[in-house]
Amino acid sequence: MSHDVKAWIISIGSELLVGRIVNTNASWLARRLTFMGFTVDRIIVVPDVIGDIVEEVRRGLGRVRLIVSTGGLGPTHDDVTMEAMALALGGQLVLNGEAELLLREFYSRRGLPLTRERLKMAYMPEGCRVLRNPIGSAPGCAISYDETLLVILPGVPEEMEAMFENEVVRIITQIAPRIAMVECYTQLKGVPEAAIAPVLKELSKRHPNAYIKSHPKGYILEEPHIEIRVIARGNVEEEAREIAKQILEQIGREALRLGGSTITEVKCQANT
Amino acid sequence: MSHDVKAWIISIGSELLVGRIVNTNASWLARRLTFMGFTVDRIIVVPDVIGDIVEEVRRGLGRVRLIVSTGGLGPTHDDVTMEAMALALGGQLVLNGEAELLLREFYSRRGLPLTRERLKMAYMPEGCRVLRNPIGSAPGCAISYDETLLVILPGVPEEMEAMFENEVVRIITQIAPRIAMVECYTQLKGVPEAAIAPVLKELSKRHPNAYIKSHPKGYILEEPHIEIRVIARGNVEEEAREIAKQILEQIGREALRLGGSTITEVKCQANT
Repeated sequence: MSHDVKAWIISIGSELLVGRIVNTNASWLARRLTFMGFTVDRIIVVPDVIGDIVEEVRRGLGRVRLIVSTGGLGPTHDDVTMEAMALALGGQLVLNGEAELLLREFYSRRGLPLTRERLKMAYMPEGCRVLRNPIGSAPGCAISYDETLLVILPGVPEEMEAMFENEVVRIITQIAPRIAMVECYTQLKGVPEAAIAPVLKELSKRHPNAYIKSHPKGYILEEPHIEIRVIARGNVEEEAREIAKQILEQIGREALRLGGSTITEVKCQANT
Repeated sequence: MSHDVKAWIISIGSELLVGRIVNTNASWLARRLTFMGFTVDRIIVVPDVIGDIVEEVRRGLGRVRLIVSTGGLGPTHDDVTMEAMALALGGQLVLNGEAELLLREFYSRRGLPLTRERLKMAYMPEGCRVLRNPIGSAPGCAISYDETLLVILPGVPEEMEAMFENEVVRIITQIAPRIAMVECYTQLKGVPEAAIAPVLKELSKRHPNAYIKSHPKGYILEEPHIEIRVIARGNVEEEAREIAKQILEQIGREALRLGGSTITEVKCQANT
């Protein structure tokens, strides 16, 4: 797609690399960012190891407009994200006054002491804009470096999602491309995926602003079923919807020509 | 952990980066590889773009012992994995005779022609050892470069899993470390995660061959519940089990000292 505003998602946590947890955070963020107009072109999972986090964050700084990280902000010994981020940014890890205040409030409301382990969560790279955690303890951070905005979020899904909706959306809307995105899909039957493939290839070339993808859904009564999804961009929603519909209608006509048919109406969903 | 035999998982597919699909393939592979003794230290999701695939594969070649890729092997226009792999390896993309034969059989059994789009799935990097696909059409490939074994699998989960079990396990067992892995876990109540954190930190330092992780499970009757998981390695299963149990028993004693208790027996699972 042209005029890309690129984003990376960096998921931090050894539990993801031993396969104990499925990375639903990354797919949730990928979908939200895509519908805000960003082009997510990497999801990178790294262990809770400072050198590995630094390596991947540095690769992205100055290269993509937005990096969102999740995980590694808690009180335990393997939560090293903030330390690694400070290193990657070439700055200091400092006690953030606002974050400290949030933690004091959080624990005093629960009648718990602010131990050294808990206070650790207030240490952040110098210059962080603190992101409040409305559910758990660990605050996040948004910080700019070169042309990159780095957003650091916790790994607990409910906390990450709430902070994204409450605070991050407002910040990153300012750097998101001013475009509308619409996703439309339909289903075909009676056409094998390989037969429709050249049609999709041709349409993809003709519409560089659209993402066209077929997903085989297996055989029903010996007839192949395929789902076709199109994500289209436009200056306004109507334009994006028109592009997506045109592409799907063209695919429907080609399916007919190849002896198949469209079995569901075109359905669409916009990001607005 | 010491004596690491490192592995990377590279997931290829734009559908993962628009968040339409959760990357269950990566977590499945991560778990299988971990229990075979590999240390998975990256999962990287890249779009179906040749330059991006080449960049990430080249980063891993010569650096880690094993790279497993999934996705991008089908007949459609955006399936570019084999072309990208040939480029990354610095070799040619060639028509693989064995793969062609498999495809001829696959389609003739179904009474379908071997079109140009379908034959595309037989083009692989020169030197590929073909991996049979017992379910779908696209064969995979195993190929060595420097000190790295590169295993290329399709993205359809059932196909990927079947090929891994049927063919890949036998090949990569030869490069897997000869160690046993045991995972044990227990649950604590009445101790906040931050209170047990220094204990886990100390034990992690003392046992570099073990992976120790706490997972808060929320509050039940106002008491915090935490699950503790330990993955330990040893030369034989008994040794690994002994290490994991010792660690968990120590954590149980510390929990008692901190006013909490263990609420489930230690349960273990081995990779054998």
